[in-house]
Amino acid sequence: MSDKNSTHVWAGRFTEATDALVQSFTASEHFDRRLYRQDIRGSKAHAAMLNRAGILSAEEYQAIIEGLNEIEAEIERGTFAWSATLEDVHMNIEVRLTERIGEAGKKLHTARSRNDQVATDLRLWLREVIDEVIASLRTFQTGLVDLAEREATTLMPGFTHLQVAQPITFGHHMLAWYEMLVRDEQRLVDCRRRVNVMPLGSAALAGTTFAIDREQTCAELGFERPSANSLDAVSDRDFAIEFTAAAALIMTHLSRMAEELILWASPLAGFIELPDRYCTGSSIMPQKKNPDVAELVRGKTARVYGDLQALLTLMKGQPLAYNRDNQEDKEPLFDTADTLRASLRAFAEMVPALVVRRERTYEIARLGFATATDLADYLVRKAIPFREAHEIVGRAVRYGIEQGRDLAALTLEELRQFSSAIGEDVFEVLSLEGSITARNHLGGTAPAQVRIQVDKARARLGQAQ
Amino acid sequence: MSDKNSTHVWAGRFTEATDALVQSFTASEHFDRRLYRQDIRGSKAHAAMLNRAGILSAEEYQAIIEGLNEIEAEIERGTFAWSATLEDVHMNIEVRLTERIGEAGKKLHTARSRNDQVATDLRLWLREVIDEVIASLRTFQTGLVDLAEREATTLMPGFTHLQVAQPITFGHHMLAWYEMLVRDEQRLVDCRRRVNVMPLGSAALAGTTFAIDREQTCAELGFERPSANSLDAVSDRDFAIEFTAAAALIMTHLSRMAEELILWASPLAGFIELPDRYCTGSSIMPQKKNPDVAELVRGKTARVYGDLQALLTLMKGQPLAYNRDNQEDKEPLFDTADTLRASLRAFAEMVPALVVRRERTYEIARLGFATATDLADYLVRKAIPFREAHEIVGRAVRYGIEQGRDLAALTLEELRQFSSAIGEDVFEVLSLEGSITARNHLGGTAPAQVRIQVDKARARLGQAQ
Amino acid sequence: MSDKNSTHVWAGRFTEATDALVQSFTASEHFDRRLYRQDIRGSKAHAAMLNRAGILSAEEYQAIIEGLNEIEAEIERGTFAWSATLEDVHMNIEVRLTERIGEAGKKLHTARSRNDQVATDLRLWLREVIDEVIASLRTFQTGLVDLAEREATTLMPGFTHLQVAQPITFGHHMLAWYEMLVRDEQRLVDCRRRVNVMPLGSAALAGTTFAIDREQTCAELGFERPSANSLDAVSDRDFAIEFTAAAALIMTHLSRMAEELILWASPLAGFIELPDRYCTGSSIMPQKKNPDVAELVRGKTARVYGDLQALLTLMKGQPLAYNRDNQEDKEPLFDTADTLRASLRAFAEMVPALVVRRERTYEIARLGFATATDLADYLVRKAIPFREAHEIVGRAVRYGIEQGRDLAALTLEELRQFSSAIGEDVFEVLSLEGSITARNHLGGTAPAQVRIQVDKARARLGQAQ
Amino acid sequence: MSDKNSTHVWAGRFTEATDALVQSFTASEHFDRRLYRQDIRGSKAHAAMLNRAGILSAEEYQAIIEGLNEIEAEIERGTFAWSATLEDVHMNIEVRLTERIGEAGKKLHTARSRNDQVATDLRLWLREVIDEVIASLRTFQTGLVDLAEREATTLMPGFTHLQVAQPITFGHHMLAWYEMLVRDEQRLVDCRRRVNVMPLGSAALAGTTFAIDREQTCAELGFERPSANSLDAVSDRDFAIEFTAAAALIMTHLSRMAEELILWASPLAGFIELPDRYCTGSSIMPQKKNPDVAELVRGKTARVYGDLQALLTLMKGQPLAYNRDNQEDKEPLFDTADTLRASLRAFAEMVPALVVRRERTYEIARLGFATATDLADYLVRKAIPFREAHEIVGRAVRYGIEQGRDLAALTLEELRQFSSAIGEDVFEVLSLEGSITARNHLGGTAPAQVRIQVDKARARLGQAQ
Repeated sequence: MSDKNSTHVWAGRFTEATDALVQSFTASEHFDRRLYRQDIRGSKAHAAMLNRAGILSAEEYQAIIEGLNEIEAEIERGTFAWSATLEDVHMNIEVRLTERIGEAGKKLHTARSRNDQVATDLRLWLREVIDEVIASLRTFQTGLVDLAEREATTLMPGFTHLQVAQPITFGHHMLAWYEMLVRDEQRLVDCRRRVNVMPLGSAALAGTTFAIDREQTCAELGFERPSANSLDAVSDRDFAIEFTAAAALIMTHLSRMAEELILWASPLAGFIELPDRYCTGSSIMPQKKNPDVAELVRGKTARVYGDLQALLTLMKGQPLAYNRDNQEDKEPLFDTADTLRASLRAFAEMVPALVVRRERTYEIARLGFATATDLADYLVRKAIPFREAHEIVGRAVRYGIEQGRDLAALTLEELRQFSSAIGEDVFEVLSLEGSITARNHLGGTAPAQVRIQVDKARARLGQAQ
Repeated sequence: MSDKNSTHVWAGRFTEATDALVQSFTASEHFDRRLYRQDIRGSKAHAAMLNRAGILSAEEYQAIIEGLNEIEAEIERGTFAWSATLEDVHMNIEVRLTERIGEAGKKLHTARSRNDQVATDLRLWLREVIDEVIASLRTFQTGLVDLAEREATTLMPGFTHLQVAQPITFGHHMLAWYEMLVRDEQRLVDCRRRVNVMPLGSAALAGTTFAIDREQTCAELGFERPSANSLDAVSDRDFAIEFTAAAALIMTHLSRMAEELILWASPLAGFIELPDRYCTGSSIMPQKKNPDVAELVRGKTARVYGDLQALLTLMKGQPLAYNRDNQEDKEPLFDTADTLRASLRAFAEMVPALVVRRERTYEIARLGFATATDLADYLVRKAIPFREAHEIVGRAVRYGIEQGRDLAALTLEELRQFSSAIGEDVFEVLSLEGSITARNHLGGTAPAQVRIQVDKARARLGQAQ
Repeated sequence: MSDKNSTHVWAGRFTEATDALVQSFTASEHFDRRLYRQDIRGSKAHAAMLNRAGILSAEEYQAIIEGLNEIEAEIERGTFAWSATLEDVHMNIEVRLTERIGEAGKKLHTARSRNDQVATDLRLWLREVIDEVIASLRTFQTGLVDLAEREATTLMPGFTHLQVAQPITFGHHMLAWYEMLVRDEQRLVDCRRRVNVMPLGSAALAGTTFAIDREQTCAELGFERPSANSLDAVSDRDFAIEFTAAAALIMTHLSRMAEELILWASPLAGFIELPDRYCTGSSIMPQKKNPDVAELVRGKTARVYGDLQALLTLMKGQPLAYNRDNQEDKEPLFDTADTLRASLRAFAEMVPALVVRRERTYEIARLGFATATDLADYLVRKAIPFREAHEIVGRAVRYGIEQGRDLAALTLEELRQFSSAIGEDVFEVLSLEGSITARNHLGGTAPAQVRIQVDKARARLGQAQ
Repeated sequence: MSDKNSTHVWAGRFTEATDALVQSFTASEHFDRRLYRQDIRGSKAHAAMLNRAGILSAEEYQAIIEGLNEIEAEIERGTFAWSATLEDVHMNIEVRLTERIGEAGKKLHTARSRNDQVATDLRLWLREVIDEVIASLRTFQTGLVDLAEREATTLMPGFTHLQVAQPITFGHHMLAWYEMLVRDEQRLVDCRRRVNVMPLGSAALAGTTFAIDREQTCAELGFERPSANSLDAVSDRDFAIEFTAAAALIMTHLSRMAEELILWASPLAGFIELPDRYCTGSSIMPQKKNPDVAELVRGKTARVYGDLQALLTLMKGQPLAYNRDNQEDKEPLFDTADTLRASLRAFAEMVPALVVRRERTYEIARLGFATATDLADYLVRKAIPFREAHEIVGRAVRYGIEQGRDLAALTLEELRQFSSAIGEDVFEVLSLEGSITARNHLGGTAPAQVRIQVDKARARLGQAQ
């Protein structure tokens, strides 16, 4: 056996040492080492099962547990000597274990392969990430609900096409954001069920010749059930892709919020003030105060899309079972998890701290003939078919534009040019307050509805998931 | 008002006709007309509600229902005159309705907007697509289970890195495919719950001033519940993205199967024969018989990835509520649905018809020292730690390569050069049959396990979803 | 031979008819028929070469040319009977040719395959598309240069982070758009050189046994050179991907312009007015006038990204030479070309027609302490190091914010609180006009520079490409 | 001013310290520090220009140059104290400079902004990367040309649809790979021209009020020309996207090669042997020798696609000028550059070292009726129209399949059943050697053509680019 390769557990059948470039090209320990806790946890459960199955003696089992505990401590103290030559987190730990405890260490890999081991590690890790993200989503949801209640009656312009459409309340808008995050949470809960399946015991691809007890390791590791097919279990990365797709949707939502925050913080809108502590300045322009966090979240959305695309493309067209391509699954997944967690934390903290400039949102809501639909609805109640009412109001708006005055600023006489059905009572429906108050049904923007939804959300958030 | 624009329901406030180029650039009826059934169904439910709410009289309601029925018949007969000038499916139908029934037609759009209308149509349509895809998945699953049973004892090489790894059974391989499709089905079931929510009643973005009864329309249209926030309801396209992501995973699975089918049908492997009726030939090479269906499915996977990316990118950074960008949601979604349905149908029909060339899969399984792991496991049972056993076998393999003989073809004496623990009983573990039979645990490749999984699958498929 | 398959030119070696589902799944004529002109042009050049090489007689050649001309006329008249059973545009035309002219038609496919034929067609087609897109880019560039000149002195706020940064001129902004489009044009010119290479003569993958003259067909079809390797020539779709990537960048630019147009047309900014003929209204809100064209262009950008991703993914991991996956190259490419052409045409027409509301752009430019950098620069000229000057101005801005007044509105006394270096002459640098006039260097926003760049652009546009 | 923020150069106008979470969320120094050489180089050129413009004195200029040299040395020695609080590479270096040299350091940022500074750094960096990649491409091309010459007469099966199509030579196949890489190089040469443009002097977005000499810095930094529009110069990331798109195409090519290498190294094909030093083994299966490098390259292609998608998506819809989103441009670009360089290096080293198993490629080439097209061409030369010849051969192939014999193994009598035009001379065209020798035209697979192309490639590679 080649001396150079003697560090490789698989070197027996090889006649020359691995090329140095290849060694570094193929190593993964610099990024997969972050799975060390999961790897050790999985190894412990595997050892316990081997012990119960009579493959490891009580002493060997004991030695392995202690050795792994010490290794975990070494890693956490920063004294563990990671080696790229040992390829990955699994071999780094296994080789160190044998270094520390001798023979027993050489028995740990009985009845398993790195193929089922890494799939197990990754699922354990992702399960934790999902739990953490769900907690963040709930914190953010709570912040939005509080904000919605605080601004339940705050008038602002509702936009479509970035044109003023109809008056809404700021609270109603915050509850739209809340609803997005509720769906995001549900998707993660669903995804978690498919993550929480145990590949361990699938070995390389076909299972093992040892009489293993997969139900035991499954219980020990808190998985819902063992995988049903060994070939599938080592080849499948659906769980990673499904999570990344769910993350991409969350980032889409954050990006839409970001777009609005940036716009609202711009002097063009002037709807909100972000506390100075969430903003940064310019190296050249002394007056600048920039909504960097929102811009970065909007930008970071793109990288999560890239990660999703990378993972899908990675798996496309791969024959079963494991191929080395799959080593490339980790970095996109880690990057998505890191980006998502940091972005959610930042928004959950910053958004509820924004200050609404209510006089400004009110002022802009009065632009753009925002209550034109209310006038059309008014005409419908005066027995004019909606399509005709719409046309009548369209003409009134054209007149208002020419005059440079909003509908509410026209006289009754002027309004009656367009329809004799218009009476004194029209001015109430043309007011912003009248407009929002009237939209008082399930899902509508009326303050009363906002409060109902706030209560429902509070009840939901109060429950255990 | 401009004459030219008089066809536009919104023309009241405009002073010039729409530019011809813009007219065609913005029209969507050429692709959204396929939503006509859903649009009509939604309009009927809306009209029923407006009637109960006293906004439409019984006569008006009756006229609308009859008019819509006639329009549906016209469309299905191909006599409906679609017009790009009328922008979209909604306006085409509404304008035609008024043409047919007069005044009452002008009242149908009371208390709704195209924003909530199109979101409702799309969800109704997608719900049907999902149900159809789930049915196709189950048909395909059934075909795979039958095939797995038929080939439960058929030996073939299991590959990792496209190198021969360990012997498996063809039935076990088919069950791996089955497992993928089970997850795919679960994802669609989960997604359907989020699709099945009703936006109708959200109107443009803020709800409406009419006293609508959303629970009534909801029940009528078979939705699980009405949406809770009007702003969110008209802006949200999560349901389309989640479906497309689920479809991308299904296509990933089909693409992996395709890669294997192409490889297996190649003379390089020669594992299977595809019936002629599923293949096509060459315009120049008279001998060619190509696995086109599998190649196309592998290729079509790429377009679904593109659709997913398009939908995510489309929504990223859009401020609430509706923006015209969203009109671009339909073509990717339709394309994904069409591609997915056709690909699933083709595979569900073709795959179960493949013929396994069992002598060929057996022959190749004997290559590549496929039972080397069995020998290592054997040594472990003779009390040699796995890592040492692995190394011993590695050296034996190197010797075998030099000799040009498989492990099973070495003599006992030769084998004992590498370890004196090897005895007469080794040849059983070195046989392909011994290897697969030994992997007899949950998820393992043993024929007995394949049959257990087949039974479980049959039970699952027999149940209502 | 199966009767059913008798329409297939390759049916000789098959024992059963193609499955109906497979027939429709694999057919491409419904989308590749749009290549008919290129296919006929390529066939004519091929026939001319076969004639010169003695493979076709003069009479046969003559019959083929006439037959193809008639078929082209049939297609353009709409009387050609396209058939999915004949798979694709190539077979539809060839079979029809033989129908019309008999024996000679059966000789046309000598020394070629659909593999080199379709690659040739696609390149001919794309070359035309590129020429058309370049022409559109130049029309749009011209419109922007005119607009830049018209608005060379129009003051507007320059934004970074959507916060007011420094005053700029509207003309300068339009020239930024112009610069983007210049790069876009260069990329297409570069791409065209790689498109303009002839695969014809590569046959299926290995070339042909006939003594063909590729230089002759090359000259006839206006290609720059024949491809150098037959295997590469039938497998390569780089040219399609490179074009789509260039298109994706153009759409990125249009999307950025769209974002600004939408924002500028919003009442939040109110910077521009788009003529009514480029806008549409709402089915429910009578006052709405929406910048739909810009929104759709922004949205359509996403589909071109999707097409690019689809094409890359399609080719990834394909072994040489042709695989049926490649049939999927056309729809994304066609979609990108169509989207790009329509979007460019729409913008080239609409953008130069926008009306700048100069009093509004001026008013907003005065917000946000836009000349703070000018004050810092002023202090530098008074011998204060830039970093200190920046800090001094930062403090002055903070004071201004507290006072609710811009720097230009502070008194000299107030300003001198922050630095005694400030003198009477400061108010000139604090004016918007002073600020832009001072940025008078290559690339700067000063009106004088805008005019210089306008002249350069005119000179460039006046030249032949 | 807040104490905490005192490290921020822009803190003057702020009233509270930056939130710790925001501080770390927005920092980029952990990834942009790799631009330190380019940043220092740019600063030196800027300082030289400021000196000549009279903005820096000779002493100040001297101090800056020396300070920057020392900082560069500190960084390279690893003694530089990077700080996330200082946000990015630019501020880390500037603050350290002032620490070292005092007042003069505070003057360096005169007439520039981080917006033009980072764009300049990134272009300098990317220009170097491109030069390095081009060099790697040429090394790889050279290796392929050598291999092509070595295997110019080696027969192998040419595949389409992974079915045996026609015999080709291994050398011809290697030249197909060479051609791909030639286009890749051309694309990078084109891209480099657009990278090599200098943004410096654009300052924040509008240029500067100082009388700068951009031509001087341009010459000093080796740029081709200064950018023509300041707003465009700080907003544009086309150069990064164009490079990434070109990289994605290179990776597509490497991935296609990888797919073939993996297949060829599989026992299913057995066409090549990869030296052990380029392969790795398995932790469980002692016999395994896996083509990991090729698999990883195939997998890494996906991440570059993801990077491209991320960059495009990042820029889509951004209003001008600089937004913080753009900070997210670096990591995808760096990742693409790193992945591309490592993958190219690995392939350039490994591929030319592969050993072709010529008896095996020959043996497989004889499968699949590979010379059926040659027989059809033969019949054409006997005056049978190609379409008829194709059908005749198709029937002969069907007969051969039934008989289990290749065409070359049929007797003359058997062959003449299908056409009486077949004579004694047919067996030459049915031989593999006859088939390849006959394809002797530009681009064809004949050994003579391979040698011509090898010579052309050598001549091209010998020239300076």
